[in-house]
Order: sequence, then structure tokens, then C-alpha cells
Amino acid sequence: MSTDYLTQKGQAFDRAAFESLLRRKVFLWQSFEPYGSVKGLFDYGPPLEQLESQVIQIWRDHFIRSEKMMALKCSMLTPYEVLKTSGHVDRFADYMCKDPKTGEILRSDHLIGDVLEARLKSDKEARGEKIEEKEEDPKKKKKQAKAAKGAVKLDDAVRKEYEHTLAMLDDFTGEGMGELIKKYDIRNPTSGNEVEPPVSVNLMFQTQIGASSNSPAFLRPETAQGQFLSFQKLLEYSDGQLPFASASIGYSFRNELSPRAGLLRVREFLMAEIEHFVDPEGGKAHPKFHTVADVKLPLLNRKTQSSGSTKPEMVAIGEAVKTKLVDNETLGYFLVRIYQFMEKIGIDMNKLRFRQHMENEMAHYASDCWDCELLNSYGWTECVGCADRSAYDLSVHEKATGTNLRAREQLKNPQTIEEWVPVIDKKKAGPKFKKDAKAIENALEALSQDLKEKLQITMESEGKAEVPVEEIAAGKVEIDLSIVKFEKQKKTITFREFVPNVIEPSFGIGRILYSLMEHSYWTRENDEARSVLSFSPVVAPIKVLVCPLQKDPKFAPLIAKLEEALDNKSISFKIDQTGVSIGKRYSRNDELGIPFGITVDYEALDDGTLTLRDRDSTKQVRASQADIVKAVSRMVKGKETWADVVARLPAFEGQEKETAE
Amino acid sequence: MSTDYLTQKGQAFDRAAFESLLRRKVFLWQSFEPYGSVKGLFDYGPPLEQLESQVIQIWRDHFIRSEKMMALKCSMLTPYEVLKTSGHVDRFADYMCKDPKTGEILRSDHLIGDVLEARLKSDKEARGEKIEEKEEDPKKKKKQAKAAKGAVKLDDAVRKEYEHTLAMLDDFTGEGMGELIKKYDIRNPTSGNEVEPPVSVNLMFQTQIGASSNSPAFLRPETAQGQFLSFQKLLEYSDGQLPFASASIGYSFRNELSPRAGLLRVREFLMAEIEHFVDPEGGKAHPKFHTVADVKLPLLNRKTQSSGSTKPEMVAIGEAVKTKLVDNETLGYFLVRIYQFMEKIGIDMNKLRFRQHMENEMAHYASDCWDCELLNSYGWTECVGCADRSAYDLSVHEKATGTNLRAREQLKNPQTIEEWVPVIDKKKAGPKFKKDAKAIENALEALSQDLKEKLQITMESEGKAEVPVEEIAAGKVEIDLSIVKFEKQKKTITFREFVPNVIEPSFGIGRILYSLMEHSYWTRENDEARSVLSFSPVVAPIKVLVCPLQKDPKFAPLIAKLEEALDNKSISFKIDQTGVSIGKRYSRNDELGIPFGITVDYEALDDGTLTLRDRDSTKQVRASQADIVKAVSRMVKGKETWADVVARLPAFEGQEKETAE
Repeated sequence: MSTDYLTQKGQAFDRAAFESLLRRKVFLWQSFEPYGSVKGLFDYGPPLEQLESQVIQIWRDHFIRSEKMMALKCSMLTPYEVLKTSGHVDRFADYMCKDPKTGEILRSDHLIGDVLEARLKSDKEARGEKIEEKEEDPKKKKKQAKAAKGAVKLDDAVRKEYEHTLAMLDDFTGEGMGELIKKYDIRNPTSGNEVEPPVSVNLMFQTQIGASSNSPAFLRPETAQGQFLSFQKLLEYSDGQLPFASASIGYSFRNELSPRAGLLRVREFLMAEIEHFVDPEGGKAHPKFHTVADVKLPLLNRKTQSSGSTKPEMVAIGEAVKTKLVDNETLGYFLVRIYQFMEKIGIDMNKLRFRQHMENEMAHYASDCWDCELLNSYGWTECVGCADRSAYDLSVHEKATGTNLRAREQLKNPQTIEEWVPVIDKKKAGPKFKKDAKAIENALEALSQDLKEKLQITMESEGKAEVPVEEIAAGKVEIDLSIVKFEKQKKTITFREFVPNVIEPSFGIGRILYSLMEHSYWTRENDEARSVLSFSPVVAPIKVLVCPLQKDPKFAPLIAKLEEALDNKSISFKIDQTGVSIGKRYSRNDELGIPFGITVDYEALDDGTLTLRDRDSTKQVRASQADIVKAVSRMVKGKETWADVVARLPAFEGQEKETAE
Repeated sequence: MSTDYLTQKGQAFDRAAFESLLRRKVFLWQSFEPYGSVKGLFDYGPPLEQLESQVIQIWRDHFIRSEKMMALKCSMLTPYEVLKTSGHVDRFADYMCKDPKTGEILRSDHLIGDVLEARLKSDKEARGEKIEEKEEDPKKKKKQAKAAKGAVKLDDAVRKEYEHTLAMLDDFTGEGMGELIKKYDIRNPTSGNEVEPPVSVNLMFQTQIGASSNSPAFLRPETAQGQFLSFQKLLEYSDGQLPFASASIGYSFRNELSPRAGLLRVREFLMAEIEHFVDPEGGKAHPKFHTVADVKLPLLNRKTQSSGSTKPEMVAIGEAVKTKLVDNETLGYFLVRIYQFMEKIGIDMNKLRFRQHMENEMAHYASDCWDCELLNSYGWTECVGCADRSAYDLSVHEKATGTNLRAREQLKNPQTIEEWVPVIDKKKAGPKFKKDAKAIENALEALSQDLKEKLQITMESEGKAEVPVEEIAAGKVEIDLSIVKFEKQKKTITFREFVPNVIEPSFGIGRILYSLMEHSYWTRENDEARSVLSFSPVVAPIKVLVCPLQKDPKFAPLIAKLEEALDNKSISFKIDQTGVSIGKRYSRNDELGIPFGITVDYEALDDGTLTLRDRDSTKQVRASQADIVKAVSRMVKGKETWADVVARLPAFEGQEKETAE
């Protein structure tokens, strides 16, 4: 037992046994095994691929269909310019240190963290303190063990400094980390070599589009940018009406330099991202907020975290928005919808919390951000980010491309306003300013009302004036009244133009699937070797196991009839005709998370009745084929539970005992 | 009217109008429009994204669930070594010519083809012949026009040679094309410059995994390789039993150097690929073949094509396999399943054929190949390839990695055989051969039975013998009886080991979607401006348009009730409450392909009945909300047709006329 993380039945979670199950039942494995495997890349086998497909279908129904979102599919290959504008070329990076002798590349923060933690551990050992057992990367453990051999005691001041540095590690720049490495003489723990100073390494996969190298491109690091660049299309599709949301289910990429933690940190991952576009005026209200206002969510706010606690409070979302704990209704509405989605797919709701980002943790553009975190054996894991990205993305793309990425609101009462406007004599301005003419014209128009008025007065009194024009080589231009006059003009405004704000719930599907598998895992009390994956019938990769009681050709016609009935309802099933005992067959299939078993026994040959077994309770009912198939069909659609079925159909006790022999 | 391709109603197909519809209703557009767009990359807007999603769901149900295939998801990022082994590094390439003055890159075969076609056209003009109107890329047309100005007549011999060359163009190597370019003085039509000789350019997107440049990688050009490398897992999951099939729905990439033809030639595309693994002994029989043997398919065989005809024959697949026209049952079974899938999603079955590959057209490893081609305004387009890849892929990966990629068949009657086996004295061989010992041992074991016997005789008579060993530097080794003896030993064989063969149906989803959209497009006879996309109810992106007769708050409660009922059945719908006429609202939504309209009128306020309108016939029925929603629900599941509903529910004539005003 390597952790204090518990299964849904309160059992110690044995990650080795869990991983062995995933391997045996081919849920997933590192890609390209015959070629030595590639870290951070995983293949999904049949059970996990189908689990993913079901979770995605529920996501589509829960968000796209039910919320009438606009589904989008955008390209993964993305030109350099787009990601330069979005900030990813400059900021989607980690600091790395190179071991110049071995060529090994180490993430600077991991390196510093590992070494300081090892020294603190060694210090504890030296002082004879008990070391806290924490779940850790075995490799990390080994490194620590190596670094700590011969247990070295630290000065109290040094120990405190190390602890403080570890707590603040996220705040250090590359330069700052370089200083730490020098100051603490931090070396590559594997080789003992000094390392080179940290350099920023971009984490996008780079390639090029077409044959010439002047079209550099990246694999996108998020699906969001494609959605922002489709804004005009979406606005058109929605007849110009805000708010609306786009939604995209697609792959993103992150070239992790040293991937850890299995499915939680991978290089290629499926995301489901929603971009909800809303008018920032009007407090980002949501039309359906009243329908969820009473739903209570486990919120772990900034203040609680600052106080050192990690205990969330159950707060009604209506209350949370009213007190401004959650910034606005739209953000609040999505937190509830995320919560409901997690419940639908079978997440253990005791292992879910919403954690508010600390001020220094948020992306530079975000105005509020809550992560939906799921607890698994690696700790609390961010699985959905729900951020208010404000107007950042649309604004930067608009500025970079000159494309209008705004929405308009028709004003109820058109307004007449007076404003200062430059009236340019183009016949004179053209020849005088030549190629700069357009830039100067734009600059004059963009001046503030105050400045326009002031310039007119200056020209009237002094005959000329100087205007700064960033876009031209000279940086400024001299104007006089023969070329431009500023006049006060009346103008009727019928609409207001604005850059919409964006609320973005962003789901990491792989992390959710991994957590879901851990949440579903437990072992039978009477038999620890019998592990179960309790996938809910709506997401289970295969719905039914069909078992003839024994290998006997007499069962064939009944099995064929049952197959046809299940096919007609599009229910996925598996037939197990092997000669082993029913108990063993069930046990084998509990590990695949198949929720129901239908057994065809000798009684069935007489009266056509079948038995239906529930995986979780191992209880059975007996009824006609039609009734059994109908019950299964309703349960896999989430329209009925096993409790409903047990109440309706007669119980059955019999066949073989449920212990695996 | 730019083509002789006809709509399903026999109307001339107007591609410009069709494309305008796709643009207006935001089905798709070139990606990154604000940044000037990137050729060969497309974004899908809401209608197309949802159409794709429905088609994929049907594919999953039709193949994965119904055929009990093993769904797989493999990584897109693929290490160099994998694609070196598969042959893609060497052969996934096109020949290109560079215009050294402009830097333009031209596909060699396109360049030669375009120039020769232009000369032939010019010749026709010069001889006053009518030029056949063919649908062509407008850019190509312009190039041709430019090349042909001043219409030049050709010698009869030259004309014949050009025609012959065009017909054989696919067979030329790079060198051969280089000679053609010199011989015919072929230049870049845009610039008039001579071009550099053809060079092979690989069409995979290259990148690297991790920070060091010694892990080059590509974006996969097909999903198949990941499936082959998962073979052992699949075999485990199927308890070692063949045949079985894996299936993967995922993206592949091709770095087209000059993409043409819209959605038919793109750089990033969704594929659905099946790899059916089968024992090559036993004629590749399929257990379910008898269920489809009578299905007739439009087959265009090799012989017919050689004779110059393109007319397929309707042949029962049982007959086709019996006469060896189609190589085996498994291939035949899949052709039928592909046919049935196309029918399910609403493909116009008069625009579908299966074309057999010509001998010189097949991939080097394939033993037979049939393409499912769909006719659209670009011509007959390969949408599914169905190839017998034989044992090629598993064999090359096994050889490259030393991993066992074989299956075993338990022999009914174990056999005892005698065979020559090398008995090596390792104590002597080790020190003598040093680092080569293992390679020599392997080489001795791999020798044929004949050679082993011969070597034993040679050593007995001459005291020594020489054995070729490719893997060591010397290339051969001298052996004698002190080191190795060849003995005849008895061995019992209980199983047969073999490399499975693979039948691969490979679907290009984008091409199928594009063809489906063209097949669904037509215009109302009474009103040419009214275009319709007749998506079948099972694939339509949105199922229902809800229309209150007029803008009137009285309708609100009924609409809310209807919304709830549709939501309960997970039916996607759109509400159109704009003030325009019902006719106009229907017309607008015919273009989105919404199959049903439900109108809430004043009568509904009295008796709660609603009207249901069928998009294709524009006929209506009137019934209670419950009956209407039930009818829609059954139709979108494909359990009932409009004809069934009309027969069941009372017809309704009324509301506004169906012409757009």
C-alpha cells in the first residue's frame, strides 16, 4: 500500500495492483512499445477508447446539445504568427538546465525542488526524525535516496531558507533559479555534475507547412486560438446575438521535456474547450443562472488557501456570486454545469473540489479562475480550468491582423454626440507625406478628443503643431491648417461596438478518464484478489456480459436470440463461452467494468427466462428476455437504476457462488 | 453551370452556388482567415462538425459495436524509426521541381501534366476543334489559358506522344520526369522559367520529441502503424484467437506541397481505419460471409478498366468471390459492409462504385485492393480504400525490432518431426568469437535444414567449414566440431506459428462528408434560389426547427413545454422566433439540412396540437405534442420514415405557402 489515498469503499488504494489491472486488461500502454516506447505518449486499448468515447458523447449532450453551443473543429497545425500573437511563442515555455557532460536536460524547477527536498529529508534522517511517507515517483525516490546517503544535518537557518525557497519556487524567474543553483551548489543528482544556467525552452512541437522553410508552424497548445479566430463566423451563425458559446473537442500538444505521472502529464492530449462570448457590460449575467442558483459546490477559495487550509466549503452558487466570491453569473453557471457533468459520468463527488487560483497563479490575461480538481492517488489534480480570459485574445488578434473581432449592440435610444474629427485635405497630404500618409491619417483619427481639440487651438495660435506617429520612421509629424483641420461634428450613434469577454471552461479529458478509473476501482471484501471497476452503466465500455451456464450447444439458439435483441437496441456486449465457472467469468469481467451479466441456464431452455446480474451488488433478478433487455437498455441510458429494476423484477438466488476459485 | 455532374433531382450542379451556401451557413472555411488563411487546412463550423460527429457515431455502431471490433487510439506523433521501417520515410513522397528564380515549388507530375494538356488544348484550338468543357481548378484554367495563347498546332506524331505520356504519367520515376521536362522544354507556366530537375520531397510533417534533436519524429501519415504495433495487446485481449479486427478513428497528416480541390486534398484529415487480422491459411474466410453473399455491388474490375470502360457491373459478392474477381471472403464481406454504411448515412447509391486497383497502382505490399469511389463534381473520388496488405507490416516491424508479432494456432494433432539442430559448446565459442558469439549462434540456428546437414558432413570429412554471417564485420566464420556439432533431434510441435495477414478498409471521413453534402444538395423546382440539403434524419446536424407562427408571447408556455420534451429525448433543435414568414424561416433552414419543422400556431393554444413539416416533401401532419415528438424521435433513430408517419398521423394543409417571398 503505497499511499493514504482510499478507494470508494474506504480501502487503501494499491496503485501497483491498479496499474497491473490496466495493463492486463489493455486499457492503455506507452506508445510504440516494440520500438522501446516513448515517454509521455500513450495508446488507449479497447476498454479505455470506448470509455473515452462514451464520456465524450455525454459531454456533447450535456454541453453542445443541451446548451445549444456551436461545435467547431479547428486545425491543429497552426502558423507561427497566430501563436506569436497569442503569447505562446514567448510564454509557453519551461526553464531547463543542461548537464554539459551527459547531455541530460533537466527542468530547472524540478531539479532545484528535488535536490532541496532530498537535503531536507537527509537532515531529518540525521536528526532522527520520522520521515513522512508520501507517494512519489520511484525515480525521484531513488534520486533522493542517492542524494541523502550519509544523512547530512543542516543549520536551522539553512533548513528554514530551503523550506521557504521550496514554497516560493513557482515565483522564480529563470535568472532567479540560476542564482539559486549557484548559491546552493545544486548539481545533477544522477551524475553529480554542475549544470548550465537555466534557459527557456518552448514547449510547442514545431514543424513547417509546405516545402519552404518560411512557413514555420506549431502543433497547437490549446484549441482555444482556433475558436477565437472563428469569432466572426460564429457571430454570423448566431445572427449577431450575444452571448453564445463555441465548443471544440480536439487534440493539443505539449512537448514535455521530462514527462512524469503517467496519464496526467502527456505530450498529446484530448481537450474539450468551451469559449463563451459575453458582453462585458451587464456584469456577465447568464440567462439560465436562476435554474442553478441553489446548487451547492465545494469551493476552496483564495483566502482559505492563504490561511494554509485546503478544506473546501459547500456554498450555494447563487450565494457565491452574490458575495463576489465567484466573479460573475456566467462563471458560476459553468462551475455548476461542470459539477453536474462529473456526476453524470460517475466521478466520486467526495473527491472533487473547485479551487480558486491565487493572484500570482493566474494567466496574465485572466480576471478570475477556478479549477475543478479531482483527487486521485497522485493528489489533487486540475482536470477542468474555468477562467475568465476577459477580452485579451480577441483584442490581440484584432490588433495583429486588423480584422474586426467585435460585436455590436443595437442601442435602444440612438444617441447624438458631438466629437472632434480631423478633416484632412488629401490632395495636399498625399504628396507631402507620401508612403506615410495612411499611417498619419490613422494616427490623427486615433487621437483622444482632448488632444484633437488642443491641436486645433495650437495650430490656430502658432500656425503648426507636432503629432507623435509611432508607425512611421520619424516617429512624429508636423501638421498645419492647410493640411488638416479638427472640427466638432455631430454624429448619431445607433449601436455600441465592443470586444466580447470570454469565459473558458477547458476540460482535460485524459486526466478526467484517469481519475474516473481510480474512482471506480475497488476490491471485493471477501476476496481481495477480485478487483472491480465500477463504471456507471452510462459510461461503461461494454454493457453486458452474456454467459451460457456451461459449454453446451443447446444454448446456441437462445444466445443467438439474445444477441439479436441486444444488437437491435445497440447495446454493446461480450459473450463468454469459455468452460470456466460462472463466478470466474464474472470476476474476469468485473475488471473490465462490465456492469451487467446475463446468464442463460437450463431453466431458460424450458421457460425462456434469463438472469440478470448487477456487478456492484452481485445481486440477480430473473425475467423474460424482453424484460431483461428492456431493463438493461433503460439502465445504460440512465433512465433507471439497479434499485428500480430490483423493485420491479423478481430476485434470483442461485447458480454458482460468487467467489473465484 | 460549370459541370455535367447532376444533383439527386437531375439538375445541373452549380458548384459556385453550393459553395456559397456552405460559406453562408458556416459549414467550413480555410483555417486562420484573419491571418490570411492556410491552404489545405480547414475549420468545420457547427453544421459540418455535427454532421461529422453523427457520421462517426454511425460508423462506430456499424463497425466497432456491431462487428465487435477492438477500438484503439494511438499516438499521432510517431518516432522516425517506426516510419523508416514502414517505408514511409523512403516512399511517402512526391517529386517536386523548383523554379530557381521565383523559388516556387511545383509538383513534377502536375507541372508536366498541366503544360502538356495546355499544349494539346492549344493544338485543338488551332485546328478549330471544340474544346470539351471539364470542371477544373480556376487557377489551372488560367495557367492553361496563358500557356495556350496564340494557339499552336502540333505535329500528329507529337500530339500522339503527348497523349501517350499523359496516360502513362503515373508510371514515371523522378529521373524519367526529369527527362520529359528536358525533352519537351517544360517550364513553369506562371513565370516562363526553366525549372530544376525533380527531387523527391517527403510529405510527412517533421518535428522532434523532447528537447534534444536526436529524437526526430513525424506526424503519422496513417493510423495503421499504431494498430500494427499494438498487435500483441490485441491478441492478448482476444485470448489469442484470430480473426479479429482493430479500429481506429483518428487524424493523419500529409504535407501537401500545393493543395488543390478543397476538402478532397487536405493536410490534416480524419480517418477511420480497420485492420482485420486473419490467418492466411484457409483462404481468408469470414464467419459472417454467408449473411451477405447475395448482396449485389457495383464492381468496376481491372479487366473492364483495361478495356477503356468505366461502367461497373452489379455482381453478387458471393459470385464475385467464387469467381476470384474479389480475392477472398473477408475482403468481400468488408466491401458489403462499406456499401451498407454508405447507404445508412445517406450517400446517393447511384454515385457509388467499387473500383479495383490496376496491378501497377497497388501499394507494393498489397495483394488486392478495391476503392469505394463516390461521384461528386470533381469526378469519381476515392473515399474508402479496401486493401489486402498481406503480412507486410507485421513482418517488417518484427524484423526491425525483434518483437514477436505472430499468432499461434494450436494443432489438432501434435506432430513429431526430426530436425538438424546446432549444438554449440558455449565455453569454447564464447572466448573464441567474443562479441560476435551471439550473432554467430543466431546465424547457425537460422541456417536451412539442408545446409546444417551439409556442414556437419563437411566438418566430419574436412575438419572445418565456413559459414556466412552477415551480421558480423568479417561476414563469415570458420567452425569445427570442437565448437559446434549439428545433430538430428526429435521435436513435438503442438502449434503452428504464423504472421497474420491484414485486410484494411480505410475511410477518409472528410471526403465522405464532402461527397455527402454534394449528394444532399438540390434546389426547389418552383424556386431555384431555394436550395436544400437533404441530410437524412439520422445524420442531420440539427433535427428540428421549432417555429411559433408569429412573434407572440402567448406561445411561450407551449414552446417551453416542447423544448422540454425534445430535450428529454436528446433531440437537437433550433428555435426561430424571428418575425419573418414561416415560408422564409423554413427556406432558411432547408439550407442547414434540418429535416423537420414543428410549428406552434393559434390552434395549438386551444387543443395543444402541433404541425410537423417534412423538409423534402414540404408535406405536413398535425397531432398532439407527444405524438409529434415520438414520431421525430423514431425518425431520427432510423426506426421510422416520413412515409410511415404520414400513414399514421393526419395530414395538415395550411399556414403560409412554401414559396419564399
